[in-house]
Amino acid sequence: MHSKDLLGIKEISKEEINLVLDTAAGFKDVIGRDIKKVPALRGKTTVNLFFEPSTRTRTSFELAAKRLSTDVINFSVPTSSVVKGESLIDTALTVQALGADFIIIRHASSGVPHLLAKELKASIINAGDGTNEHPTQALLDAFTIREKKGRIEDLEIAIVGDIIHSRVAKSNIYSLRKLGARVRLIGPPTLIPEEIKDLGVSVFHCMEDGIRGADVIMMLRIQMERQDKGFFPSTEEYSKNWCLTDERLFLAKEDSIVMHPGPMNRGIEIVSNIADGPKSVILEQVTNGIAVRMAVMYLLAGVKR
Amino acid sequence: MHSKDLLGIKEISKEEINLVLDTAAGFKDVIGRDIKKVPALRGKTTVNLFFEPSTRTRTSFELAAKRLSTDVINFSVPTSSVVKGESLIDTALTVQALGADFIIIRHASSGVPHLLAKELKASIINAGDGTNEHPTQALLDAFTIREKKGRIEDLEIAIVGDIIHSRVAKSNIYSLRKLGARVRLIGPPTLIPEEIKDLGVSVFHCMEDGIRGADVIMMLRIQMERQDKGFFPSTEEYSKNWCLTDERLFLAKEDSIVMHPGPMNRGIEIVSNIADGPKSVILEQVTNGIAVRMAVMYLLAGVKR
Amino acid sequence: MHSKDLLGIKEISKEEINLVLDTAAGFKDVIGRDIKKVPALRGKTTVNLFFEPSTRTRTSFELAAKRLSTDVINFSVPTSSVVKGESLIDTALTVQALGADFIIIRHASSGVPHLLAKELKASIINAGDGTNEHPTQALLDAFTIREKKGRIEDLEIAIVGDIIHSRVAKSNIYSLRKLGARVRLIGPPTLIPEEIKDLGVSVFHCMEDGIRGADVIMMLRIQMERQDKGFFPSTEEYSKNWCLTDERLFLAKEDSIVMHPGPMNRGIEIVSNIADGPKSVILEQVTNGIAVRMAVMYLLAGVKR
Repeated sequence: MHSKDLLGIKEISKEEINLVLDTAAGFKDVIGRDIKKVPALRGKTTVNLFFEPSTRTRTSFELAAKRLSTDVINFSVPTSSVVKGESLIDTALTVQALGADFIIIRHASSGVPHLLAKELKASIINAGDGTNEHPTQALLDAFTIREKKGRIEDLEIAIVGDIIHSRVAKSNIYSLRKLGARVRLIGPPTLIPEEIKDLGVSVFHCMEDGIRGADVIMMLRIQMERQDKGFFPSTEEYSKNWCLTDERLFLAKEDSIVMHPGPMNRGIEIVSNIADGPKSVILEQVTNGIAVRMAVMYLLAGVKR
Repeated sequence: MHSKDLLGIKEISKEEINLVLDTAAGFKDVIGRDIKKVPALRGKTTVNLFFEPSTRTRTSFELAAKRLSTDVINFSVPTSSVVKGESLIDTALTVQALGADFIIIRHASSGVPHLLAKELKASIINAGDGTNEHPTQALLDAFTIREKKGRIEDLEIAIVGDIIHSRVAKSNIYSLRKLGARVRLIGPPTLIPEEIKDLGVSVFHCMEDGIRGADVIMMLRIQMERQDKGFFPSTEEYSKNWCLTDERLFLAKEDSIVMHPGPMNRGIEIVSNIADGPKSVILEQVTNGIAVRMAVMYLLAGVKR
Repeated sequence: MHSKDLLGIKEISKEEINLVLDTAAGFKDVIGRDIKKVPALRGKTTVNLFFEPSTRTRTSFELAAKRLSTDVINFSVPTSSVVKGESLIDTALTVQALGADFIIIRHASSGVPHLLAKELKASIINAGDGTNEHPTQALLDAFTIREKKGRIEDLEIAIVGDIIHSRVAKSNIYSLRKLGARVRLIGPPTLIPEEIKDLGVSVFHCMEDGIRGADVIMMLRIQMERQDKGFFPSTEEYSKNWCLTDERLFLAKEDSIVMHPGPMNRGIEIVSNIADGPKSVILEQVTNGIAVRMAVMYLLAGVKR
């Protein structure tokens, strides 16, 4: 890796992505064993600095950090001095002064991880910043696709849903394009910005058209709270047009796989029998997330300062 | 143990109960040492999945898990994706996909642990489900009685208070009956269901009658919030009839012991000088809880899948 | 150390303070290494019992405890049985029965740690009690001063701000006087009690007078919520008289250092370019806090019971 931080997929090269995926394969082996940890980073300190609630991502990083034998501190916001009005940078500098080697940050504002990375010597790992990026999600998705389909290059990958607000979509577009896949975005015009075509993707406003012949269908979570803001009329209406149903999935390639970053709204963006069906790799994404995050931490620890 | 899970005392045999108690004796020895942990389950992962708040039980399991050298994650509900409306089963499947070997679950609905046990390969340990069971509490109570009285068979054991809502009472009834004790339930008719006599217990609506000659008096915690629902008129009234006082305790055997699962309402269900007196084994119950939970986890880890 | 507990600086001798500082120097060395932990207290259990929110102090203790290889439990109040109305002493006795070797306590009422110390065999470490003391803060401050200035004896040390409500100020006054420094208190008459002069300090109601010739300027955090209670008219007014500005700092010794316990209100009690400037040792205080807390725990563990 060229940088001490993982801020976004935009900032890293195809070679770096592949290095993470190759390293993650080794760690997936580790976490499948009876004793699923290694002493690699013993004596290092990881701080989870989450300004937005999250179970999956925080827990996944916490387990990755523990399985590398680092000590982990959860810095949760409601009980923190953020309440007392301390500035973000002061909080981060304090966390570093406490000896953090890794700061895993999630924040509602895009660009916060980049700001911290400039100020701090610790490795900053972006666990989701505003509507910008969620790079480890894209890496675990790439890992899962590569594992299931044997390659990523030249695959037809459809991403369905609320693209405009999704940092998961954005990181995946960067990652999948760098790895040579063809990316299709599917959703209503209100949820797909025009300028996104500049990233080399194609846009579909009809799900049937977009899904036809796809190797991978990546569903996004619909944010219920967007409804009030007029991005879509109702969940019923949304579901009618954009839910992954058996009929729609039938249009994809026979050996296609179905992904979702979780947590799912069953019956809204995906029907249950697909979520639990043979094409679904949704739970494997969760497992792979730990292996990928271990790989990222392990590789960043080796970067010369 | 015959099952990978501990769902309730109802589901296990007398032999399994005794196996847990015998194994716990060894772990009590461990936690009395200067270095009170063993590497037995190093590299395993324990997830505390608590949908109801709890200090004692969660902390007790957390310490038991750490003293067996497992990594422990607290999945607390307010900061979790349960907020986002994820279904219980999806949450549990995700926790398993993260690599949980043990899922310790507390939930307001009876039967939730049984549901998860069917769906998951991880060991499910019931830490309290609705008004159904709280099996590790009954096991630590049995361990404490056996340690203090030398046996459980043929003892006269009185359980006093809100039987109908108490999972602690229910698990203890199953456990103590299987181990051959005679069980008396004491409380007002509104708090003891008629059909409970089918479990082979006797029922007393007068505390003096029920406590006379008892070897063990097990007080239950009165739930203040029940008062509003008309189960008892007032705490003063409740206390007048069902509080463990010196006069009442005098009716029990001279070498009787007094138990309480905690936290106590001093002056309501038990007077302070009994809680802190020579017959009280209340703090030893807390200590024994860790040994018993270590035993349960250790034994379940050895069950062939 | 003569006691199993650290309740306040008032209770310990100059020799004990120096023993902590000397021991902390060794631990500062440890936490600067690649593997920043030692197995010294492996198998011991630390419980953080915080009845007031805190990030810095709780996290600092948590890391100190982990770097000594103890198991750490965070007993947070909102999800605890304190909600259920359990008494403080019962909570503490339960924590001890769970096997706590160290109980780190923060509480809004002065004297709570002293109460627990009398009742419990575990080592009680006061992490802040009401307006009484915060002894580890004073120890880390003394450590930082000694490290930067080579000595503490005969230094002129100015403490600026809300003295009357500050447990940090109180612990520092005891500590710095015992170590032979001259202590000046600076602030408005409403925030400095008359009787504090009995502790051998001088009082200044003009910041310029108080800061002149000082070796160390220790700024206190202004508690915004005090404003409503009439202790000072407004933050603007407070800032005009008591903020550490370049002009004021110019009156101190040329080689003076600036301290703050954090979190800072930038622009209110201290201007940013001083907080981030060459005289500031604020982030080193954070780092030293871990070394000092490791030293305290390590030394208390060695006290004969």
